Amino acid sequence: MTNEQFKKEFELKRLKVEEAINKYLPPANTRPSVIHEAMRYSMEAGGKRIRPMLLLAAHEMFPSNIDPLPACVAIECLHTYSLIHDDLPCMDNSDLRRGKPTCHKQFDETMALLAGDSLLTYSMYILANEYKDYPKVANGLVLDLSYNGEKMIYGQVEDIEGERNGKMTADKLNFIHHNKTAALITSAVTMGIRLADNYTEEKLEVAREIGKNIGLAFQVIDDILDVTSDDATMGKTTGLDAANDKMTYVSLYGIERSREIAAELTNKAIQDCEKLSENCDFLKALITYMQNRIN
Amino acid sequence: MTNEQFKKEFELKRLKVEEAINKYLPPANTRPSVIHEAMRYSMEAGGKRIRPMLLLAAHEMFPSNIDPLPACVAIECLHTYSLIHDDLPCMDNSDLRRGKPTCHKQFDETMALLAGDSLLTYSMYILANEYKDYPKVANGLVLDLSYNGEKMIYGQVEDIEGERNGKMTADKLNFIHHNKTAALITSAVTMGIRLADNYTEEKLEVAREIGKNIGLAFQVIDDILDVTSDDATMGKTTGLDAANDKMTYVSLYGIERSREIAAELTNKAIQDCEKLSENCDFLKALITYMQNRIN
Repeated sequence: MTNEQFKKEFELKRLKVEEAINKYLPPANTRPSVIHEAMRYSMEAGGKRIRPMLLLAAHEMFPSNIDPLPACVAIECLHTYSLIHDDLPCMDNSDLRRGKPTCHKQFDETMALLAGDSLLTYSMYILANEYKDYPKVANGLVLDLSYNGEKMIYGQVEDIEGERNGKMTADKLNFIHHNKTAALITSAVTMGIRLADNYTEEKLEVAREIGKNIGLAFQVIDDILDVTSDDATMGKTTGLDAANDKMTYVSLYGIERSREIAAELTNKAIQDCEKLSENCDFLKALITYMQNRIN
Repeated sequence: MTNEQFKKEFELKRLKVEEAINKYLPPANTRPSVIHEAMRYSMEAGGKRIRPMLLLAAHEMFPSNIDPLPACVAIECLHTYSLIHDDLPCMDNSDLRRGKPTCHKQFDETMALLAGDSLLTYSMYILANEYKDYPKVANGLVLDLSYNGEKMIYGQVEDIEGERNGKMTADKLNFIHHNKTAALITSAVTMGIRLADNYTEEKLEVAREIGKNIGLAFQVIDDILDVTSDDATMGKTTGLDAANDKMTYVSLYGIERSREIAAELTNKAIQDCEKLSENCDFLKALITYMQNRIN
């Protein structure tokens, strides 16, 4: 797949995801409208939709008549709730997200708290409701998303605890990255496969390994970009890790070694794609794109 | 069923629920321990476990070999998350819950936010994981809990909006009570029935009607107790509604008429129990108990 083909395919899929977000979220004027406006504000703030993309990439490798788009919306709802809550004053206290005011800046803290709660709840509702004709599929999807959504929180807690008592170690850093970032990315890949008519536990295990590696690479690259990029490119405040004396892959291994680690993880994941299916060109290209991202 | 028999049965069931909470929540020393301590702190703070009790009462009316206790824990997790988030400074800013410091007072705001998120996520995980051998059942449970969990948030939002712009009407008050309180109570009854080997859509509809009526009665009684009870009995600050000039059933209809409304709703629900099953003694006694509660 050429870079040109990938870009075109990516854009086609991304538009489908945007349409699905609009379709599956309640209309903004649903009573009470303020919460639906807040949910949509954060959901429609853009972003690369990496998790839905991974889900679609995994899904298209296996024969399936089941529409993957509700699952794409569900995982994006869950991701977005985590961003809204992370930005709150009692967490990162961030004013800016993707170049726009964060949810609690645009609305207020109460509504941001509830919009987050609502998107988390709604992510499960979409799965249970849209896949109710395929209860085994629905159950697998809820299982993946809730299990990894739970891990994401554990990673967040360990991160906060690490900052508080300042004794960060490589073990802690790995725990944080694996849980906070890699878990949800893993569920994107496994959820894509759960939609297949028949998948094997073996394939799911390969998917988990791929998810773990690209999730960790994603976070290492995030650590690098926090040092090498700027606010305008990133759409958020950069340099915070160094300012907060936070232990990251960069502070632990330096930029060059971190880049190598990200490349190793990415290459490993790309090799594993072949084990899932021969028809893995888009997934491989997507993983490469994730490695080369600049924001 | 005599009052003595009911009390004994209630206590037996309540102990089973307490045991199940201990069994299905991750141990307090699970990494990272602080979040598991916070989750357990709020889950083990007691309370009457009304929602799990309703679920058990509904469940025992229908033949079923499926263990209802994981579902009891799930609905209590969801209820508890809502209490933790309601108590936060940006919401009710409450220091006391069931006579003990609220979660953010015992831990801190960050950990209370995350403990709430975690209990909400975990409620769905328990359902998906513990009932995975019965995917249709699992799906119905997730559907009920997420749908009504979503409604609960909408009721909360309308309540907050009502307080803010002070134009409360009977229509708004009904919307709030139906969503904020009755929705989750309704799901307790329907989830109990979803566990049955075969239930009909008709039975579910009766269950929804019962849940709506007892949920509304529950809130009307809450409004009455806020005026007639005291802090020590309630385990929380009373008199807040009047102090905040909040529109409640009491401010709208007076105490006497509110008591009548609660009795009418309760009687209607008790009559409907017979439509579910002849074997409805415990459910009827539980509904009567809910009407006569003093805290």
